[in-house]
Amino acid sequence: MTAGQVLGIDFGGTKVALATADPGWSPVVSSARRRLPTTGSAEEVVRRSLEAAREMVAAPLAVGVSTIGVVRDERIRLAPNVPGWEGMELPRMLRDEYGDTPVVIDNDVNAAAAAELRWGALRGVDVGIYLNLGTGLAAALVVDGRVVRGAHGAAGEIGYLLDPTRDNCYADGDAPLEELVSGSALAAQGSALVGRPVAAAELFTMAGDARVDALIDEALRTLAQAVANLCITLDPARVVIGGGMMGAAERILPRIAALLPRAVPFPPELAPATFIDDAPLLGALALAVEAVGVS
Amino acid sequence: MTAGQVLGIDFGGTKVALATADPGWSPVVSSARRRLPTTGSAEEVVRRSLEAAREMVAAPLAVGVSTIGVVRDERIRLAPNVPGWEGMELPRMLRDEYGDTPVVIDNDVNAAAAAELRWGALRGVDVGIYLNLGTGLAAALVVDGRVVRGAHGAAGEIGYLLDPTRDNCYADGDAPLEELVSGSALAAQGSALVGRPVAAAELFTMAGDARVDALIDEALRTLAQAVANLCITLDPARVVIGGGMMGAAERILPRIAALLPRAVPFPPELAPATFIDDAPLLGALALAVEAVGVS
Repeated sequence: MTAGQVLGIDFGGTKVALATADPGWSPVVSSARRRLPTTGSAEEVVRRSLEAAREMVAAPLAVGVSTIGVVRDERIRLAPNVPGWEGMELPRMLRDEYGDTPVVIDNDVNAAAAAELRWGALRGVDVGIYLNLGTGLAAALVVDGRVVRGAHGAAGEIGYLLDPTRDNCYADGDAPLEELVSGSALAAQGSALVGRPVAAAELFTMAGDARVDALIDEALRTLAQAVANLCITLDPARVVIGGGMMGAAERILPRIAALLPRAVPFPPELAPATFIDDAPLLGALALAVEAVGVS
Repeated sequence: MTAGQVLGIDFGGTKVALATADPGWSPVVSSARRRLPTTGSAEEVVRRSLEAAREMVAAPLAVGVSTIGVVRDERIRLAPNVPGWEGMELPRMLRDEYGDTPVVIDNDVNAAAAAELRWGALRGVDVGIYLNLGTGLAAALVVDGRVVRGAHGAAGEIGYLLDPTRDNCYADGDAPLEELVSGSALAAQGSALVGRPVAAAELFTMAGDARVDALIDEALRTLAQAVANLCITLDPARVVIGGGMMGAAERILPRIAALLPRAVPFPPELAPATFIDDAPLLGALALAVEAVGVS
């Protein structure tokens, strides 16, 4: 056990990751880490994670927490895909554990953006956008060098953006844009197309298959338009793209880079995220460091 | 001539409006006003406006200026429709006139949002959206109770949002969304439809004409989707709609009000703007009052 450390916890859909670090830490040095599977009920997962955290650091200076969904009125919302997570009182469970220790919770994409702001591709950016292209699709908006949370913690939940060719929307249980351009959407559509289960990453390696090419082409067209529209709306200096689909960055970024200077009056810089695999965990650490007040 | 007053100037496409007021003024009392036509070169219009302002107040405490276009790198940009305005060095001309007196310039829609924040329908709102439905189409985003200017002064220029069914965009000289749902777009499409020049306002009175009904219905569908998408992106507590097309508010607002609770995970309140006709001028006064530091 170590004193004088901050704690970061990332509650993901399939795993929980924990890390401790000095408040003055930066990602060029390694940090102590643990991973836990998300088996059992959601409450059990949180309980076991807090036990594991206790073994890593008895009295953290501050705790940063990244979570799927969004935090609203003391509960997790917009997390329908992970059983038991929707409606869970995560903030209260964290207060019960940590008492007066500063605890900052944000969703995984906002947390990843906090890591990019502190240590990565958004450092020094006043107005910016972080886009997460993963299993799902979401963004974080940055204004005045800070992540915009919105009035209900849901700013940047662009997976719900409307598909103008259809009338389905959030109230129908749909996430229209996410169903067109996320990793899960590509996997579902691609699997139907080729007649066997394929992941989005594999689809990007199947160049030459005309049906797959057309699927990817249409998805990237929609994605580029969505990114351009975000940039028209916010007028950022820089757009940073992260998430698991960035394994196919060489296919994805040029499409976005081609549209921005045409569609956006003052085109922003476009850059890949600095952190990909463990962005939300680093984000949780960034939130904790911020809570300690290290600048 | 009066001392101890702030000055507001609204440079519009067809007129310049000026007003002076006490720093503690609020719109329930009248303010001294003047209007000038925009004849002659753009520089002449500015010069005559500054002369008129001098007659109203010799030494204003602060000056707020609302302008068409956006202010970027000391010049007016995105004002292609008003001859001579694009590229004009308005900030320098104002500095030459006012020296060390605080001068705040913003575009007309951001200024109108500042008026709504200080005295109107956005008072007390932390995260909000002001939408201007006029001849053109633009929005102001509010975060932390202040208007977001963006990295290049162009946040909220949603007239440029892409039409996913077409490839035309800003670089082609187009403003895709504005060409679908602004007052000028409705007037152009409506005039072509009925075979004589009709203003957007008149179209809204022609209920029963099936072709006109279909045109308005499609425009309102697109508008409602655009507002919903803005709300999904920013997660505002309140959306306020102003601009000249609000003469048809009873046709416009219900369409937006019907979609928001379906499409937006945490639907914001929807309200008409407090100020319609003179919103940018009141906004210029609001910017001046803000510069004096009255809270």
